[in-house]
Amino acid sequence: MNNANQQTYRVYYEDTDAGGVVYYANYLKFAERARTDWLREKELILSELAEKENLLFVVKKVQMEFHKPARLDDIITVKTTLDKISGTRLYLTQTLCHNETTLVTIQVSVAAVDNNIKPARLPKHLVNKLWK
Amino acid sequence: MNNANQQTYRVYYEDTDAGGVVYYANYLKFAERARTDWLREKELILSELAEKENLLFVVKKVQMEFHKPARLDDIITVKTTLDKISGTRLYLTQTLCHNETTLVTIQVSVAAVDNNIKPARLPKHLVNKLWK
Amino acid sequence: MNNANQQTYRVYYEDTDAGGVVYYANYLKFAERARTDWLREKELILSELAEKENLLFVVKKVQMEFHKPARLDDIITVKTTLDKISGTRLYLTQTLCHNETTLVTIQVSVAAVDNNIKPARLPKHLVNKLWK
Amino acid sequence: MNNANQQTYRVYYEDTDAGGVVYYANYLKFAERARTDWLREKELILSELAEKENLLFVVKKVQMEFHKPARLDDIITVKTTLDKISGTRLYLTQTLCHNETTLVTIQVSVAAVDNNIKPARLPKHLVNKLWK
Repeated sequence: MNNANQQTYRVYYEDTDAGGVVYYANYLKFAERARTDWLREKELILSELAEKENLLFVVKKVQMEFHKPARLDDIITVKTTLDKISGTRLYLTQTLCHNETTLVTIQVSVAAVDNNIKPARLPKHLVNKLWK
Repeated sequence: MNNANQQTYRVYYEDTDAGGVVYYANYLKFAERARTDWLREKELILSELAEKENLLFVVKKVQMEFHKPARLDDIITVKTTLDKISGTRLYLTQTLCHNETTLVTIQVSVAAVDNNIKPARLPKHLVNKLWK
Repeated sequence: MNNANQQTYRVYYEDTDAGGVVYYANYLKFAERARTDWLREKELILSELAEKENLLFVVKKVQMEFHKPARLDDIITVKTTLDKISGTRLYLTQTLCHNETTLVTIQVSVAAVDNNIKPARLPKHLVNKLWK
Repeated sequence: MNNANQQTYRVYYEDTDAGGVVYYANYLKFAERARTDWLREKELILSELAEKENLLFVVKKVQMEFHKPARLDDIITVKTTLDKISGTRLYLTQTLCHNETTLVTIQVSVAAVDNNIKPARLPKHLVNKLWK
């Protein structure tokens, strides 16, 4: 399936906490970087969508399960799969791994909004690119 | 019920993003501050539990729903309710509000672990304080 | 002198890193919270200045010296002193302490800009309030 | 000179604030990523130094000048130059650029410490690698 995607990111000190592992909220940063870079590969650039099409994405729901912690210097691989587009929402599954170990699984739904954070239609060209 | 608790925090620039609202992962920071301050009111101090009892809490599951965004200078009220203790896990519901508006609802389960991030028993004195 | 000010903030897990202490960049977050709350006490609210007067503050220079680290659960006291106003810039000294221990000293200069990040005049009412 | 080094990082939503630009403290995150990756290229891995040699680096002084802001989706190039090693300290100059524009210049000194945050000697093999 071509609607799956994989990105990698390094864990730096900024991502960790005094427990010696990545701070729990920071996995959502890696997840968003991966969604952003997945869109970029489809030539959908967030800053251009905001400026030229008055289109932003906001997260509506997140379900996260934490299996194993990541640590300083680890490489985190984020696998992003687009499960469904329905109305103005995208539904995605994201899996964060280190080597063969699954760290965190995330289900996320994202809604298109305009600059006033009001619901916006997903333009046709965007939907087409998302499924390509 | 006395196992509910309320804390308030201010939104600063550090919490916001270029969309003009609080960055989605940062609501989990407010949620954790509220859990920490709820424990503190029960005389359970995270740094003391780590040092003296070799006990840490790690988040195992999060479900978040984003209703309305918070903005710079808003006061966020976090209501934290302990729903259940089962084995080594706490189950909590947290609601983040600004004035009368619900911003984010969070279901979170938290597990007790030792310094090696291995599951740990919840000491009796701790469970007693949690329900008081 | 009444242009000095003191604020306190708690250290949470989000502020720390795997070294067991507050992450070095995060002291600048505490410093900015203190500048924001100092302005608030003078009835200068950042979000209102941005909306009503098209006025933002951006940091131009920072000098930081790190003396001792802060740790989880510490209370950080931030003392902020306005040293000088010159043209569109404020010059401030900020000292972060834990109990009697000085943690970090910061010299910071901040410039007034408009919404396009172009230099802006400091309105008279604002300068008057700053020195009060 | 071979003690200069260049790294690039993307700006994501997490790095920005409601002013529409990168939050001022976050430039220090990019600077630290660049120092970490510069060390990595010299086969000095922070987590290994901590575990095997009980050696950490802590920042002692920072001087930052902010020239132009970075924005969402910008690529930030960080040039890191080792200026001097003296006693247990490294002195570095770091320049953050976007295309041909200098965004931020940073002078930073970093000290070697042990796991108890006490000053530590810089091992010979480390000094040799740093100058190579």
